[in-house]
Amino acid sequence: MPDSKLPGSSPHGGSPAAPGAGGVPREEVFLRACRGESVPYTPLWIMRQAGRYLPEYRALKDQYDFLTLCKTPELATEVTLQPIRKLGVDAAILFSDILVPLEPMGVGLRFDPGPILSHGIDNEAAIDALLPVDVEESCGFVMDAIRLLRKELAGVAPLIGFAGGPFTLAAYLVDGPKKPAKGGGFDAVVRMAFQRPDLLERLMSHLTTVTADYLSAQIRAGAQAVQIFESWGGILGPREFSRFALPFVQEVIRRLPKDRGPVIYFVLNGGHLLNLLDDSGADVIGIDWRTPLDEARRRLGNRLALQGNLDPRALYAPPERLRQHVDDILQRATGGHVFNLGHGILPDTPVESAQALVEFVHTLSRTGIEER
Amino acid sequence: MPDSKLPGSSPHGGSPAAPGAGGVPREEVFLRACRGESVPYTPLWIMRQAGRYLPEYRALKDQYDFLTLCKTPELATEVTLQPIRKLGVDAAILFSDILVPLEPMGVGLRFDPGPILSHGIDNEAAIDALLPVDVEESCGFVMDAIRLLRKELAGVAPLIGFAGGPFTLAAYLVDGPKKPAKGGGFDAVVRMAFQRPDLLERLMSHLTTVTADYLSAQIRAGAQAVQIFESWGGILGPREFSRFALPFVQEVIRRLPKDRGPVIYFVLNGGHLLNLLDDSGADVIGIDWRTPLDEARRRLGNRLALQGNLDPRALYAPPERLRQHVDDILQRATGGHVFNLGHGILPDTPVESAQALVEFVHTLSRTGIEER
Repeated sequence: MPDSKLPGSSPHGGSPAAPGAGGVPREEVFLRACRGESVPYTPLWIMRQAGRYLPEYRALKDQYDFLTLCKTPELATEVTLQPIRKLGVDAAILFSDILVPLEPMGVGLRFDPGPILSHGIDNEAAIDALLPVDVEESCGFVMDAIRLLRKELAGVAPLIGFAGGPFTLAAYLVDGPKKPAKGGGFDAVVRMAFQRPDLLERLMSHLTTVTADYLSAQIRAGAQAVQIFESWGGILGPREFSRFALPFVQEVIRRLPKDRGPVIYFVLNGGHLLNLLDDSGADVIGIDWRTPLDEARRRLGNRLALQGNLDPRALYAPPERLRQHVDDILQRATGGHVFNLGHGILPDTPVESAQALVEFVHTLSRTGIEER
Repeated sequence: MPDSKLPGSSPHGGSPAAPGAGGVPREEVFLRACRGESVPYTPLWIMRQAGRYLPEYRALKDQYDFLTLCKTPELATEVTLQPIRKLGVDAAILFSDILVPLEPMGVGLRFDPGPILSHGIDNEAAIDALLPVDVEESCGFVMDAIRLLRKELAGVAPLIGFAGGPFTLAAYLVDGPKKPAKGGGFDAVVRMAFQRPDLLERLMSHLTTVTADYLSAQIRAGAQAVQIFESWGGILGPREFSRFALPFVQEVIRRLPKDRGPVIYFVLNGGHLLNLLDDSGADVIGIDWRTPLDEARRRLGNRLALQGNLDPRALYAPPERLRQHVDDILQRATGGHVFNLGHGILPDTPVESAQALVEFVHTLSRTGIEER
């Protein structure tokens, strides 16, 4: 099913940021930026770059449901490659969902279109009933997709694997099948943190093992970098984050294979937590659109690379204003920098805007780097 | 309908922070703290203190729907007084909803249980069709409730009026009757900010007039302080907040009567905006639970008072741990400080926890102040 007609050496036409510029192999630019090494231009990828804004994704989605796409290696591979062909981004990220490991724990999962869990894990008995997970066996389709993708992507772009942060998985599990609240939600897991910290720690401990195993398997299968999505970490104040989220993600990262590539840790809405993240064990910290990168750098220190942080809604602006927004972010970035949105790309984003974004980031960063 | 059996001089029993301590009239403590003046103990009120966690509120809610409670001055008065009787908080806040002024603009509104608008104001024609509002006429029930409340509360507690921030009203209006997204939402107004800034500014301008008129009328009717709830300001990055939210709230505050009491500006999830808020024109900045008060003080400067910021979910903790959380906040507070939660109290919060909170804040702050 994967169409191996990937773009050749120049996926974005006549861009002055043509891959391989400056003698750095195209596949290496993203990985070097993650490590804070010098790069010929700022690499970028886009959270949810494989998704509904692409007509070729919607065509597949008309034929297959979301979980079938995730669980069929050939389909997941095809979807993962779509934005590489269409946009010429500098890294591919496996098409999957952070909740995939919940099913083998014994929690039913469907999507309509957001995730709906079969039941909440909000008491001692439910926590103790969660199953241990043999990730190679129960999530083998993920590792198969990674192996397929590495073949397809050789010489073109590195492959990022991913998982949800253990606290974020806990937020979904404790909440269970509840209806969403506008702009809010996930009170249940924070309530557990205050009311029964012992229970939440027990749940976190189980999720830490599963997440470490899951990411390790992805790395062994060929993922050259991994991102940990802490999508709900920002609902915690610093004191609770330090107790219920950070130590567990640190443990996940400690347990990864020694020869791993970069680890990116992205805490959505985590501006108030940045001064805690230098210690997470990750190599790159993802910043959402709320905190300007220069401010993020001040609060995080100079050691780690940053990823981000264009407001996804800026892709609705006309090209000239989009260019200004991109330029502003590049001007504020110091040290290692991987360009990305500050949250996932929205489903009705015009594809041409995403393409223009790639062009702007490559062009403006190359100019900027030459001027420095 | 209002039951005038308000607590006497000691609503919280044998608390050492008995009202009137230190020679400051009980009704003055909150207002003095807002102005950064010395107080015998830290005053507190609780966002959504009149609401579903109180059995006496639920009893009324069984008889009347939410908007009827808001629109009937005697009922709104009764509901407003309930937490004064039950908890002994240091200020009353008018029972109403920030969306009440939408109906006279021509937008249908119902609650089930969250707000559902009749249509979205997401295009030029819809914005131009919004009606001017004579607040005294169309929201007269609010002013009537305020006049009733001032009589009931004389010598007991000051009365806070409130409105939504113009940007927050815009977020609801542009979004319209859409279904909520878990943990997200309100992309439409941000999209408009990027795509059609001229349109959003036109909408903001109308909302600024309505909000200034509405708060001015509340102040003339007797509100001794007002809070502006910018519940969705935190979805904007600093650049967009500075253009689409802050100037309009500044204009609202500028247009208030000269002899007004304190203005409190609360930007939920606004930690990344704190360095912009010293200029808002408000006297007190509300801080959500995410940013510790000492950090908030560093970013905001020393001029204004702070309000906040206990995590509402801390009220599920056993009393001894709740006491520690309260103490931690009091220790971090410097300058003028009004204690509050960092967001509205949750519907299933035990009433005893809210009562214990009042006791802890009064007791611990009085001890702390004496020790200093």
